Amino acid sequence: MKPENLLMIPGPVQLHERIIKALGSQMISHRSKDFEEVYEYCREALKPLFGTKGDVVIISGSGTAGMEAAVASFSKVRKITCVSNGKFGERFAEIAWRYAEVDHVKFEWGDSIDLDKVRESLENGSEMVTFVHNETSTGILNPAREICKIAKEYDALVVMDGITSVGGDEVRMDEWGVDVCIVGSQKCLGAPPGLAAVAINEKAWEFYNERVPYYLDLKAYVKKAEKNQTPYTPAVPLFLALKEALKIIEEEGLENRIERHRRLAKAVREWAIEAGLELFPRLNEYSSYSNTVTAIKMPKGITDSELRGTLRNEFGITISGGQEHLKGKIFRIGNMGNVSKREIVATLAAIESVMLRKGVEIKPALNKVYEVLG
Amino acid sequence: MKPENLLMIPGPVQLHERIIKALGSQMISHRSKDFEEVYEYCREALKPLFGTKGDVVIISGSGTAGMEAAVASFSKVRKITCVSNGKFGERFAEIAWRYAEVDHVKFEWGDSIDLDKVRESLENGSEMVTFVHNETSTGILNPAREICKIAKEYDALVVMDGITSVGGDEVRMDEWGVDVCIVGSQKCLGAPPGLAAVAINEKAWEFYNERVPYYLDLKAYVKKAEKNQTPYTPAVPLFLALKEALKIIEEEGLENRIERHRRLAKAVREWAIEAGLELFPRLNEYSSYSNTVTAIKMPKGITDSELRGTLRNEFGITISGGQEHLKGKIFRIGNMGNVSKREIVATLAAIESVMLRKGVEIKPALNKVYEVLG
Repeated sequence: MKPENLLMIPGPVQLHERIIKALGSQMISHRSKDFEEVYEYCREALKPLFGTKGDVVIISGSGTAGMEAAVASFSKVRKITCVSNGKFGERFAEIAWRYAEVDHVKFEWGDSIDLDKVRESLENGSEMVTFVHNETSTGILNPAREICKIAKEYDALVVMDGITSVGGDEVRMDEWGVDVCIVGSQKCLGAPPGLAAVAINEKAWEFYNERVPYYLDLKAYVKKAEKNQTPYTPAVPLFLALKEALKIIEEEGLENRIERHRRLAKAVREWAIEAGLELFPRLNEYSSYSNTVTAIKMPKGITDSELRGTLRNEFGITISGGQEHLKGKIFRIGNMGNVSKREIVATLAAIESVMLRKGVEIKPALNKVYEVLG
Repeated sequence: MKPENLLMIPGPVQLHERIIKALGSQMISHRSKDFEEVYEYCREALKPLFGTKGDVVIISGSGTAGMEAAVASFSKVRKITCVSNGKFGERFAEIAWRYAEVDHVKFEWGDSIDLDKVRESLENGSEMVTFVHNETSTGILNPAREICKIAKEYDALVVMDGITSVGGDEVRMDEWGVDVCIVGSQKCLGAPPGLAAVAINEKAWEFYNERVPYYLDLKAYVKKAEKNQTPYTPAVPLFLALKEALKIIEEEGLENRIERHRRLAKAVREWAIEAGLELFPRLNEYSSYSNTVTAIKMPKGITDSELRGTLRNEFGITISGGQEHLKGKIFRIGNMGNVSKREIVATLAAIESVMLRKGVEIKPALNKVYEVLG
């Protein structure tokens, strides 16, 4: 018998049974009081996760739809500085050229961001900076606070992809000076994929561009949100599930939740190092390892399909490989959402067993997991 | 006790219990074989519903996202003729000006399309025609075949909103000459809202515009679909539900399904006329009443909130009112998806009872329903 599936990828995440139950409900009208209450609850509950008192709206679409809505809606700018050090940072640049001139400040995947280069680009007249807070493709946490500080010196709008940090790590939009921030439902929030929430601070509207794509026009979303409605038919079941996911977060408490994510990621890292594996990101003084996903170099003696295939087929555990040119060179373990010690231990133990069986030179290191997690 | 909810609106529709079950499943990876099989099944099963041998891709987003993807992706045109006689036809014009010059051939809501005006607009150099097949806001079925015929004379691209006809009424893209067609998941397909499928014939690519919004770029969807993947994280639970919905359609048989929709709508219309109510659309020789939603004028002696509020609160039945300037002037009964005689009878009986109690001058007419439906 094929074992049941356990998702340990950086989203979509495993669903808590309460969320599965909310998802599998009979349809309600999207123009009913019932739906309006769900939408209102979600918008309000998301604000502390973003660290904002600003507006939050929810688009029926992936995180990418949220990224594009943010860039396009506020694209009345001469030039956009897109800072990237991985796949999702580069995605911003892929989006942005459609709306304005782009200065792509591009670092190697896995490298840290050199803040001097960001300053240089802003010096040359950019009015918007985009970057990814938690770069999922490489397992690095970028210095949001520092990037905002530089952007503010030049009065530039800051659009931050918080898709894989909001709800699992500290995000303080208002305090840091992030003007627009995006989160995806299927990451640290623990809900199914298909929704992107966008938080918007007042300053962004100075740059509103009315020629934004109709479906991604944040003004339409904000206007309809006054009545707790969406401009186009929302993906109702996903909102019901998101509400339940946000309730779970409320019950756990945001600080506890962030602490749990940090400890789980730390456990994965300390295990990896003790085992003799190498973490992928190359940190500088401003960056740190991601608290929601860990990227580890693939050791000698095993291929990507041997590692991930065996994990999937024998243990029913799905982890991620590297994307694009990192395919086969790294593997990634997500600890986003409602993951507990049990799933982390199961995953790392299974990886050890597969590697040892293949003759990979690693040292069993689960003791480190217990040291960190108790 | 408040009765359970029965949705008789033109989407989102009531979900079959098999679809609810599929929706409430544990998450699977969107890059797994399991998901790829689901996506492949959906794309193939949708083709006969569109009446096409062309490509079908699915966007995680509402029908509106599909409409914009269609217009924007193929917007390398000088001018677009947007034909409208209701809310959703007008929506195409709202979308299209962002991508090209628009000639809006606009008729009153509820009026039929005058084909001479369409020809006139094409004569003036349009290279794309947009229109809505089944205009949900007014309950009219527009003459797709005739519009295509005129468009072909001028070699113009035809983009048709089939959001509320595909899967419930006859659509023959290839035979009629529709180049791009859109369907929404939550209408006649009977699935939950949040997905838009777009069918694309070869000719459309002559007009591909690479400056299309990133999230709505149909070329990216078609390219990824070769491997049965989506370019951005799909709303996985909605795909699982759509697959189940398409299986139900396959089991019923498309012809039977269309026949069922036609008979249910006919029953509603004959009931209304016999009762002394008036249908809203003003037909001409080319148009006909919708087979998936019926729009009826609000009779004297009852307000919209009295009718719909009582239906909802006392009977647990939700029907739709008029949109925008038709608010309070019409009410609309949907029969999309997996609706049976039982729900139609319950709805019409409840409407009769509410109206009679309010002293509205109508005649009980359920006998007409039994005449049509047996």
